[in-house]
Amino acid sequence: MASAQIRFRILGCADIVRKLARAISLAPNATITALGSRSLEKAKKFAADNNFPAETKVYGSYDAVLDDAGVDAVYIPLPTSLHLKWAIAAAEKKKHVLLEKPVALNVSEFYRIEEACESAGVQLMDGTMWMHHPRTAKMREFLSDSERFGQLKSVHIIFTFAFDPDFLAKNIRSKPDLDALGALGDVGWYCVRAILFAADYELPKIVTALRDPVFNEAGVILSCGASLRWEDGKVATFQCSFLSHLTMDITAIGTKGTLHVRDFVIPFQEHVAPFSVSSNAGFNDLVTGWVPSPIEHTVTTNLPQESLMVKEFSSLVAGIQCGSKPDKKWPTLSRKTQLILDAVKASIEKGFEPVEVLP
Amino acid sequence: MASAQIRFRILGCADIVRKLARAISLAPNATITALGSRSLEKAKKFAADNNFPAETKVYGSYDAVLDDAGVDAVYIPLPTSLHLKWAIAAAEKKKHVLLEKPVALNVSEFYRIEEACESAGVQLMDGTMWMHHPRTAKMREFLSDSERFGQLKSVHIIFTFAFDPDFLAKNIRSKPDLDALGALGDVGWYCVRAILFAADYELPKIVTALRDPVFNEAGVILSCGASLRWEDGKVATFQCSFLSHLTMDITAIGTKGTLHVRDFVIPFQEHVAPFSVSSNAGFNDLVTGWVPSPIEHTVTTNLPQESLMVKEFSSLVAGIQCGSKPDKKWPTLSRKTQLILDAVKASIEKGFEPVEVLP
Repeated sequence: MASAQIRFRILGCADIVRKLARAISLAPNATITALGSRSLEKAKKFAADNNFPAETKVYGSYDAVLDDAGVDAVYIPLPTSLHLKWAIAAAEKKKHVLLEKPVALNVSEFYRIEEACESAGVQLMDGTMWMHHPRTAKMREFLSDSERFGQLKSVHIIFTFAFDPDFLAKNIRSKPDLDALGALGDVGWYCVRAILFAADYELPKIVTALRDPVFNEAGVILSCGASLRWEDGKVATFQCSFLSHLTMDITAIGTKGTLHVRDFVIPFQEHVAPFSVSSNAGFNDLVTGWVPSPIEHTVTTNLPQESLMVKEFSSLVAGIQCGSKPDKKWPTLSRKTQLILDAVKASIEKGFEPVEVLP
Repeated sequence: MASAQIRFRILGCADIVRKLARAISLAPNATITALGSRSLEKAKKFAADNNFPAETKVYGSYDAVLDDAGVDAVYIPLPTSLHLKWAIAAAEKKKHVLLEKPVALNVSEFYRIEEACESAGVQLMDGTMWMHHPRTAKMREFLSDSERFGQLKSVHIIFTFAFDPDFLAKNIRSKPDLDALGALGDVGWYCVRAILFAADYELPKIVTALRDPVFNEAGVILSCGASLRWEDGKVATFQCSFLSHLTMDITAIGTKGTLHVRDFVIPFQEHVAPFSVSSNAGFNDLVTGWVPSPIEHTVTTNLPQESLMVKEFSSLVAGIQCGSKPDKKWPTLSRKTQLILDAVKASIEKGFEPVEVLP
């Protein structure tokens, strides 16, 4: 039985569109039908260079692509400062919205996007691909296991990436008018989501930025960190940067176990993803070794995580087309993530004072 | 050619003495000659239970053991509050001092110990065993490699250990009159040393405690963290705790590489120690995998790290007996580590304000 094919249009020709276009073509329930850019020439060339289906329509403006009938969903990888306008425009045309991260410049903007999608009855989901890898579900099993992991005590996330200085000067992720959140909105987004993941999406109570952010000349964050604290005393830290070598670690420590992952955002390999767990570990009699040693797990997947994301999104859209309500889980996760980004930014602006997270 | 056998006496019957006694017996240039406890019965039983050499002298007071002639070095695993008195007493009797960590309750005390050892011309070294594992030298090679690692940007250390609540209530490491630094002086010592190691022992400029330390009823730290910053902008964080599952991670991130170790204080296994490095990593064309993947290394050692420590210490002592000067490297590392512990404590006491590190 063939499942419904959800028809995607894509706004913009960002680099990541190449990855998403492939993800859509690999997903069993999705297909690309339109691509729009501010330049028709650019859209044509991009579609040709990246083997888009021959029947893909190309447009020379975002408005034109939104006005095309016969599409179900829109993928928005535009610079963050354009999310508010185009996500709301898409929702108002009753198109389901797959929105790149960070979802907005701040949580107030995101509330408006969320409201527009709710009013229109369309699905909203952000583009945090690793959430959809089967490894993530396996890690959740471990973190939920009262015997193997116990109660979460602390979680420490790192996501750094060393941009080429030239690239950094030109890239939208470091332009105040396009992606004003800089590294915090980009790599920091993943850090915050991973912290929330480890805490089973419970919001922390207090967020305090670390005292050593790095800014570019335009005042955009290139590197920063924060510590977070929950009501029950558990804590988290993260470090995100555009200036350090590629590193992406989750270290979650419970009362009885520890989880380690070193490639949480993008697995080392597309089809096999590792993680390591340690449970009820202590030392041998003379304290010269661990008993037991950690265990390495791997999780395989036929579809890459970005295709699993497209598949999940398309499946929710298909459900809505058959009368289901939009799933609130995904916009809730986006909102919580953005809320914490806002708190980190506020703490930096307040001279590293603690900031209360108010849902 | 047989090397000189350095004759050790040991003050106290702490648990760790069993490990050190074995380390001394395995080291090719060291031997145990005396053990002292406040109770002669206890010392006798401990020596018998732990297969000390039959000729080991046992004493019922620390003074008596220090007065024994015919010994070269003293190992002091006493509670931290007793280090000042007994390390100085040992130095004054011209005995070389192997001193457990934390070396003192604060750096002022440690200066006095250092001075006493310098005046007496005896070697002073602390008991940070992992410094002596050959893996540590291999990691240094990587961190010093301008092509594979580049310039250090940040280092993140975790050392947590979940003490049994009963044990925690009774253990000296949580008694204000014995080990007033609690988790900071114990597991935190290793975190700070690892940070210094990654920074090639350059002192940070500013230390700021994280806002979430946990204290026991007596006011002793059971869990805490801090962020550190250097003049050149590199940063560090650490988290140490007696309340979370066993975890001991070094994550050092440079401009061109990343180092990961998960068993830095006590290797998973006695004779084989792993570490993982990643260099000049980026993503494949579609950003669906890493190029290249990290590389896992293992370093084997015939002697356990604690024996290598005894061997190094004994070899320095033998050198001094032949006219060399005491090695200043080791007390310098102890002093720098203690200095940062003091700064973390001061920052906690000042309401998490940044504290300048003044050498």
